[in-house]
Amino acid sequence: MRVGIMTGGGDAPGLNAVIRAFVKRGAGQLGLEVVGIEDSLAGLLHQPLGVRNLTPRDCRGLLQRGGTVLGTTNHGDPFAYPQKDGSVKDRSGDIADSLRALGVEGLVSIGGDGSQRIAMRLMRERGIPVIGVPKTIDNDLAATDVTFGFRSAVDVATDALDRLHTTAESHDRVMLLEVMGRDTGHIALEAGIAGGADVILLPEIPYVPARVASKIHRRRAMGRTFTIIVVAEGALPVGASVADRAAALKRGGGASAIVVEALKPFVDSEMRVTVLGHLQRGGSPIPYDRVLATRFGVAAADAVAAGEWGKMVRLHNGVVDLVPLEQAVAANRYVDPDGDLVRVARATGVEFGA
Amino acid sequence: MRVGIMTGGGDAPGLNAVIRAFVKRGAGQLGLEVVGIEDSLAGLLHQPLGVRNLTPRDCRGLLQRGGTVLGTTNHGDPFAYPQKDGSVKDRSGDIADSLRALGVEGLVSIGGDGSQRIAMRLMRERGIPVIGVPKTIDNDLAATDVTFGFRSAVDVATDALDRLHTTAESHDRVMLLEVMGRDTGHIALEAGIAGGADVILLPEIPYVPARVASKIHRRRAMGRTFTIIVVAEGALPVGASVADRAAALKRGGGASAIVVEALKPFVDSEMRVTVLGHLQRGGSPIPYDRVLATRFGVAAADAVAAGEWGKMVRLHNGVVDLVPLEQAVAANRYVDPDGDLVRVARATGVEFGA
Amino acid sequence: MRVGIMTGGGDAPGLNAVIRAFVKRGAGQLGLEVVGIEDSLAGLLHQPLGVRNLTPRDCRGLLQRGGTVLGTTNHGDPFAYPQKDGSVKDRSGDIADSLRALGVEGLVSIGGDGSQRIAMRLMRERGIPVIGVPKTIDNDLAATDVTFGFRSAVDVATDALDRLHTTAESHDRVMLLEVMGRDTGHIALEAGIAGGADVILLPEIPYVPARVASKIHRRRAMGRTFTIIVVAEGALPVGASVADRAAALKRGGGASAIVVEALKPFVDSEMRVTVLGHLQRGGSPIPYDRVLATRFGVAAADAVAAGEWGKMVRLHNGVVDLVPLEQAVAANRYVDPDGDLVRVARATGVEFGA
Amino acid sequence: MRVGIMTGGGDAPGLNAVIRAFVKRGAGQLGLEVVGIEDSLAGLLHQPLGVRNLTPRDCRGLLQRGGTVLGTTNHGDPFAYPQKDGSVKDRSGDIADSLRALGVEGLVSIGGDGSQRIAMRLMRERGIPVIGVPKTIDNDLAATDVTFGFRSAVDVATDALDRLHTTAESHDRVMLLEVMGRDTGHIALEAGIAGGADVILLPEIPYVPARVASKIHRRRAMGRTFTIIVVAEGALPVGASVADRAAALKRGGGASAIVVEALKPFVDSEMRVTVLGHLQRGGSPIPYDRVLATRFGVAAADAVAAGEWGKMVRLHNGVVDLVPLEQAVAANRYVDPDGDLVRVARATGVEFGA
Repeated sequence: MRVGIMTGGGDAPGLNAVIRAFVKRGAGQLGLEVVGIEDSLAGLLHQPLGVRNLTPRDCRGLLQRGGTVLGTTNHGDPFAYPQKDGSVKDRSGDIADSLRALGVEGLVSIGGDGSQRIAMRLMRERGIPVIGVPKTIDNDLAATDVTFGFRSAVDVATDALDRLHTTAESHDRVMLLEVMGRDTGHIALEAGIAGGADVILLPEIPYVPARVASKIHRRRAMGRTFTIIVVAEGALPVGASVADRAAALKRGGGASAIVVEALKPFVDSEMRVTVLGHLQRGGSPIPYDRVLATRFGVAAADAVAAGEWGKMVRLHNGVVDLVPLEQAVAANRYVDPDGDLVRVARATGVEFGA
Repeated sequence: MRVGIMTGGGDAPGLNAVIRAFVKRGAGQLGLEVVGIEDSLAGLLHQPLGVRNLTPRDCRGLLQRGGTVLGTTNHGDPFAYPQKDGSVKDRSGDIADSLRALGVEGLVSIGGDGSQRIAMRLMRERGIPVIGVPKTIDNDLAATDVTFGFRSAVDVATDALDRLHTTAESHDRVMLLEVMGRDTGHIALEAGIAGGADVILLPEIPYVPARVASKIHRRRAMGRTFTIIVVAEGALPVGASVADRAAALKRGGGASAIVVEALKPFVDSEMRVTVLGHLQRGGSPIPYDRVLATRFGVAAADAVAAGEWGKMVRLHNGVVDLVPLEQAVAANRYVDPDGDLVRVARATGVEFGA
Repeated sequence: MRVGIMTGGGDAPGLNAVIRAFVKRGAGQLGLEVVGIEDSLAGLLHQPLGVRNLTPRDCRGLLQRGGTVLGTTNHGDPFAYPQKDGSVKDRSGDIADSLRALGVEGLVSIGGDGSQRIAMRLMRERGIPVIGVPKTIDNDLAATDVTFGFRSAVDVATDALDRLHTTAESHDRVMLLEVMGRDTGHIALEAGIAGGADVILLPEIPYVPARVASKIHRRRAMGRTFTIIVVAEGALPVGASVADRAAALKRGGGASAIVVEALKPFVDSEMRVTVLGHLQRGGSPIPYDRVLATRFGVAAADAVAAGEWGKMVRLHNGVVDLVPLEQAVAANRYVDPDGDLVRVARATGVEFGA
Repeated sequence: MRVGIMTGGGDAPGLNAVIRAFVKRGAGQLGLEVVGIEDSLAGLLHQPLGVRNLTPRDCRGLLQRGGTVLGTTNHGDPFAYPQKDGSVKDRSGDIADSLRALGVEGLVSIGGDGSQRIAMRLMRERGIPVIGVPKTIDNDLAATDVTFGFRSAVDVATDALDRLHTTAESHDRVMLLEVMGRDTGHIALEAGIAGGADVILLPEIPYVPARVASKIHRRRAMGRTFTIIVVAEGALPVGASVADRAAALKRGGGASAIVVEALKPFVDSEMRVTVLGHLQRGGSPIPYDRVLATRFGVAAADAVAAGEWGKMVRLHNGVVDLVPLEQAVAANRYVDPDGDLVRVARATGVEFGA
């Protein structure tokens, strides 16, 4: 049996480890022929086709390697595929044709909820059997306890906080670190706790600037002249609208620029912003993510062999199992403002601005 | 209310983070007075007493710091306290007296099952109210999903495997890495998967040397002239007795020396051993362990304030709660030879020698 | 003999290691009494004075620690000390009075050329004997082969490049990394070579945007759809004036924003910018910088004991010696556009845009 | 022109970076055809030949990669090539024949003094033109200021010391770290200074055990109950003969086992040994070594193009130039017991045992 594998959306540390485990288990032990599809599904629309056979030998060194050797794109929805003239076109039929021509009988889609929705449509509307593997560096998929890449991103953000601490202490400054998290603040929250941030600002908890300022003042009163603030890229002040954020973005800053502006009336310290950006996606996955990605890759191969089409692998209470794709993408996981981790952060003195 | 806190047994990354969170929550928010006791309970037997008050100010910088600022010892059982002449003596009464003299009304014991057993006896036999916080770098306590320090140790071991890979590849060698795990192989298993080991040898799966050798030969037949073997320090060949191991230890090697000897009849490659030893305990905890240790520290402070004596904090299905101390130390967690992780490792080609 | 020590200007990894070595050698072996002055010289102007005695015991843990335990400021010139009303005032007499009142007979100034110029004036105009220790993370002081902190900053920048590589490869993107270097491009050049950058843009080599674009196109023609560009914060296109840069900064970007704008007419790839900022100053110094900082600290203590006032320690052809302060701050070291390292970079295919 | 390139002796971080730079400069810009020879020169004696053409495309990812993609061996002297029966045979004629058959007109040998001596003999006795690139992780070649790989090894050793510090502090122990350096103690000395070791034991300074013990006692008297000792693998007590060391090695320990035995009469603390071994060779080179290796690779390609046969590239006062091979291997660089670095270490309180 021939099966295709592709990676979709933003890259995350561990994608290559999933591919490696899938190929080692699938091709090495279960007799599958594995076809790697390049640049999400776009490889199926190019001439010549962007595809290649994957054997265990091709997977040497992939466990430790960041990114995805298959390439990936954020603009590859075959149901609305971008044309050169700026319009979009349904190319899902061409995808199905290419797969048929290649003799590919099923597809493994490693990607976020966008990619999984496309996978579901390909199955329903084009009859392509699919298995999903969840990937979201933001850890915002409710169906799985955790996704690979998330803890690697937390590591990068925590390391940045450790570095900012030494320089902040030396200079009596307010240091802001902007981390990933447009809609959910998991990275900001975990890195903030791990890095000893004084303030954590999340999309899920709109903040009152005066409360943040008050934290800075209270610290100064205790002889701590510096303050470290972690800002998720989707954090907004109480009452701010998405339009406010769009306006701020246009002016050349992001969530942390809004924070700086909002604090200026209250705070006379120097404020310095660092935006981590793509550094959070790059680099070798940490061991936890390598193990999790390997588990997902093996489970996906087993699911293919068992014909469990239309399902997604996930981690649930420490065990890897399967869940219907529909259910898999049904709900996002948000930071619970009254949840355990927020409570723990508050219990060690962290200010959320609300 | 005054409460003492101590660390027992071998050190683990995250001990200081527990202390910091306990003090920040307990002294900073719940009105506890916290007394740090040095060198496990030995600080209570010295003149002058090895104790110090701990306020949030004293905890600056502790989140990231490895080891324990309170000091710890493996030889501090007050019920069998070592005397200078080599004998032991019951000093538990002196412990109770010292605590009473200090006005300490309860004790938080951060330690492994040994420390928790001592804590239980102090509560039962000497009437000292105790709260336990589990600490085992080997992750072998069944009562909690995972303990802080474990993942930091896996990180160190995985980093070592990554390093050994580059030098093994260059030299056509069999490289053995011996990691912690006298009775349980969790570190060896997770680091082995994360580091792409070819062979993993665990205390829970006695190995057949000829099977390990066969893996080396199969790799060579595929053009892979090097092999990486992870050995837990308690791994033994099939049929070996504890006496065999003691004999091997006496001859100057440990588990990996036994492996080398057992492989020699089958393998003509150079074999090189690295023993990670104390490097696995040292250094700053990784973010995951900092967060977990912080959660444990906060939960311990809350437990003290709620008077939940005789219990231990733990992580259970992602939630931190309390469990009676008796139950907490009742069972070890072993690697399940038929479990999920061993199966995943086998599915990616790892040989366990059985 | 009592001697003061202070740190000036931006922090750099290794400052604490200099302080430690100075105190260990000076107070521990040469009989000096060492007074640490806080926040550059500002500690001498506060009431109460921001000063503290430093003994070897106070220096525990400082070798590895980033930042400066003495604190530092960029706004502390005593000859033009900022007043609350925004004006400046000559406070150098108060500095001299404070030192006299403390019985301090000499001053060790760890800082960049600004700090050393102030030190010289204090010696000439206020009769305060000074010894200088050079500090510039940009490595732009001609008098010394290299300064501590520089290689630590190169490490951070190179690590960022390694991370960006994996994500750039996965996405077919042009990735820009902006690193420190307002006037000199040493960090950009060394990190660019070490991180395998495709393009390096420096203040010393004004770039032609079309040449940079051509490199991107040539890479694409060879099947390399991504390009990594390192941009020093002072890099400008050919013909750009400082006013152009000021205008760009006002619009909310820095050197890399100018690059993006300049490339847009030629390049249709996505371009993503990461600005490393203060991450380059933070964190533990790498071993090279710890050793160099220790050498400088010891040499400064020896210079004090020998009464070599008015001189600065430095590294010259691998040997630490002394040089008159006047000479020390006389010249900056720039990247030589025809020098060895630029030639080596070109020899491995790096494009400088000129 | 066709030129061969090989790596000899133990691997060192940066070998791949030399190969990459040589190929990028030589094949990419100077028109050379580059033939990689596998497993030192052994690839030329195998059937089929272990050789492969190297183009810039083959060098992708090599800059960051530890080890050597060409493989290397310590047992490959063609003038005394090991036979299966244990004897040796002169195969240098076969080497020359193979090179001739491949059309290879010159050879670049990246290796230590052993490899360079072999290269010289091949040139003199077999007429094969050679260029040398120095490689010694121990940094013991007098002809060059420093070699790539050395600082990466110092980094690994310093990181180990940082880790041991936290666990030593927690436990009141004497911790010994054994690092590479059979004949020279450069790694031990630099890592010892950078890692804040209390005692450094070097091959160049035979130690008096009682002096080491005295340091431990003095520390205890000051309340420092732990001591960190760095031991180069060739360090020996005063009066010890090489035979003593051989005997100790036979009993199952190395230099640090001898230290432990020698200290036992004086010290009642627990003593724990960690032997870093091959970890020091593995992993990605640090930025300094990547830059240096790149410089060496470019210089070697330029030397080939210029016909500068019989010479070795090296770093001299910060500049890369060429030196006759005879001179290059004439002298080792030892730690100067009265030199700058030892003096600096003593100035910060380090004990050398003499």
